[in-house]
Amino acid sequence: MYGGSLTKQRLVVLGSTGSIGRQTLDIVKTFPDKFELIGLAAGKNYDLLESQIEEFQPKSVYCIEAPPSIIKNKNIQLLSMEQMVCQPNVDIVMVATSGNSGLIPTIKALEKGITVCIANKEVIIMAGDLIKAISKRSGALLLPVDSEPSAIWQCLQGESQPIRRIILTASGGPFYNMNPAKLGNVTPKQALQHPTWNMGNRITVDSSTLMNKGFEVIEAHILFDVEFENIEVMIHPQSLIHSMVELRDGSIKAQISPPDMRLPIQHALFYPEKVQNPRLRTFDTGVATNMELKPLDEAQYPCFTLAVSAGIKGGTHPTVLTAADEIAVDLFLNHHISFTDIPELVNSVLLNHKFSKADSLENIQAADKWARLQTLSLAGMSQ
Amino acid sequence: MYGGSLTKQRLVVLGSTGSIGRQTLDIVKTFPDKFELIGLAAGKNYDLLESQIEEFQPKSVYCIEAPPSIIKNKNIQLLSMEQMVCQPNVDIVMVATSGNSGLIPTIKALEKGITVCIANKEVIIMAGDLIKAISKRSGALLLPVDSEPSAIWQCLQGESQPIRRIILTASGGPFYNMNPAKLGNVTPKQALQHPTWNMGNRITVDSSTLMNKGFEVIEAHILFDVEFENIEVMIHPQSLIHSMVELRDGSIKAQISPPDMRLPIQHALFYPEKVQNPRLRTFDTGVATNMELKPLDEAQYPCFTLAVSAGIKGGTHPTVLTAADEIAVDLFLNHHISFTDIPELVNSVLLNHKFSKADSLENIQAADKWARLQTLSLAGMSQ
Repeated sequence: MYGGSLTKQRLVVLGSTGSIGRQTLDIVKTFPDKFELIGLAAGKNYDLLESQIEEFQPKSVYCIEAPPSIIKNKNIQLLSMEQMVCQPNVDIVMVATSGNSGLIPTIKALEKGITVCIANKEVIIMAGDLIKAISKRSGALLLPVDSEPSAIWQCLQGESQPIRRIILTASGGPFYNMNPAKLGNVTPKQALQHPTWNMGNRITVDSSTLMNKGFEVIEAHILFDVEFENIEVMIHPQSLIHSMVELRDGSIKAQISPPDMRLPIQHALFYPEKVQNPRLRTFDTGVATNMELKPLDEAQYPCFTLAVSAGIKGGTHPTVLTAADEIAVDLFLNHHISFTDIPELVNSVLLNHKFSKADSLENIQAADKWARLQTLSLAGMSQ
Repeated sequence: MYGGSLTKQRLVVLGSTGSIGRQTLDIVKTFPDKFELIGLAAGKNYDLLESQIEEFQPKSVYCIEAPPSIIKNKNIQLLSMEQMVCQPNVDIVMVATSGNSGLIPTIKALEKGITVCIANKEVIIMAGDLIKAISKRSGALLLPVDSEPSAIWQCLQGESQPIRRIILTASGGPFYNMNPAKLGNVTPKQALQHPTWNMGNRITVDSSTLMNKGFEVIEAHILFDVEFENIEVMIHPQSLIHSMVELRDGSIKAQISPPDMRLPIQHALFYPEKVQNPRLRTFDTGVATNMELKPLDEAQYPCFTLAVSAGIKGGTHPTVLTAADEIAVDLFLNHHISFTDIPELVNSVLLNHKFSKADSLENIQAADKWARLQTLSLAGMSQ
């Protein structure tokens, strides 16, 4: 028999109502014998959270302000995210939160030796060295879920020698062919229309500025120990090649699949096993496919350059980068600043930041807090 | 220090004056500390062979009719290919012959436990099960050199679970867009103009008919134990993706590199090590690249269908396929038959063939000989 209750992986999903969270639950539903969902954490999407509770019957729940229906449910215990991941017998935590909210639970889970599947890349950007050191100490697995680092990870499986280059692919976002002079008038609605991926709001805007690709450069540097100068980005509008790795001999391995986040999600959840998922569309050899790879014109994407520079500077600069960007994107989505103000604002915050090592949670949290306040202040927003 | 004479691999190159042979010697020249060339075997290109002897100073040489200059050279011993691979201390044999000439030396080398890098795919087609059994018994490595099986092999490194599909790529050859009604008038000169690879005459014609791709389907079935129904072919005119493997979860790994046979050659020669070769061009991220993948229209390529059918039938059918094709291509190149006669003739030979197991060298050689005579006879050529 395939699987069985004794071998079920006890899973906690943080950020269950977001895009990655929902798709993680789709995988759990597809493989009911393989996972036991013991905890769900969400923000404020209470309607969806309630229906997830009804369907998956988790023992523990977190949400920002629990509504009466959840408080009164005697089958569930309300816990903080930190308490949730620290329950005994948790096997895997899917960190599908966004911004800095996943930081503490990620650290707590890794400290306990629990496998962390991480979709919340800001956690890696802001505290990469720290969480790597923790997972090394405890032996916990830290597995990427994002499509690009997952692709790199897949390409590197079985390769033991140092690699020559990582080539990250980028769709180029909705403004790839737009005249740069017109970017100042871009509306939040336009920025939220991603050509190939259906994602949350912040990451969609970050994809349109390519800030997100800069984050992925930093993430790849941290996760795969590759120097920044050996990480390149190419525009690939079709989002079929999710990234490529050039090995020592110049041979390139690429990971290809129709754009569907459930593949990298299940890759992390089932690692090292690979399972056939009948609900995933596979590559169609019966139709013509065109895969374009184009050089990245960095001048078109100031956020990308900012991010890579912050990554190279290191210390708390990446922490400040992601915090400032989170606030700036929020200001843009709420019509307080223009699209082209995003890199201006983030750059100003970075210029004001004094270098500090990112080797303790205290330093990281202080830099994060400072950057948020500084961004609001520079944007002329009072607290 | 890098390498050293004590660690040099003692190498024999069969077919040294052909395309793969010459490129193998280019690798030897690039890494002089890594290989000691102890034997060279060629056909009738004596001028080139003599200059190779002068440059690489092999101890043993084979050629069809040794000219006086080679006979008089006291530093070299004239040996048969079989004797050459059976010399003591041979570490690697590169089988870059064509047709059936590599069969016996391949078998002899594998029986002695010597690593065989095989570019002569007809040997695998005609005697796949036999040579696999021999290498299993002796523990000898049988390593593919052709770009497509090398790509599959590279993609499979580190993968332990059964795969779902192999997707072989094909350039489509020089007649990809030609009206099928005009194929009958194709001249040998036209058939010898391959759009992306510079290769020997027979394989170039076999690429234009896609017979070669059919051979590769059989080769992939034999080398990687994948059912015929799980091997697909797509037209990829740019010859950058050398093949792809779809894993159990639907994720595809592709091997990509500028078309240069020296990469798969050195991959086999250095296995399992990967080395940086400054003479190989790497993928250029600074220019736009378009990679097209198109469904294969089998109706356009009757040789392909013939080959796959012969592979599925098994036994000595693949032996007959490659022998008949070798004769048919030769007749075409010498203007005795038309381009479209090639599949007609090969098909007639296959239809006349009585199934026999390909489990002994005797059976294989008998089928090979029968097919050659039968092809000539059906083409109206007397012996």
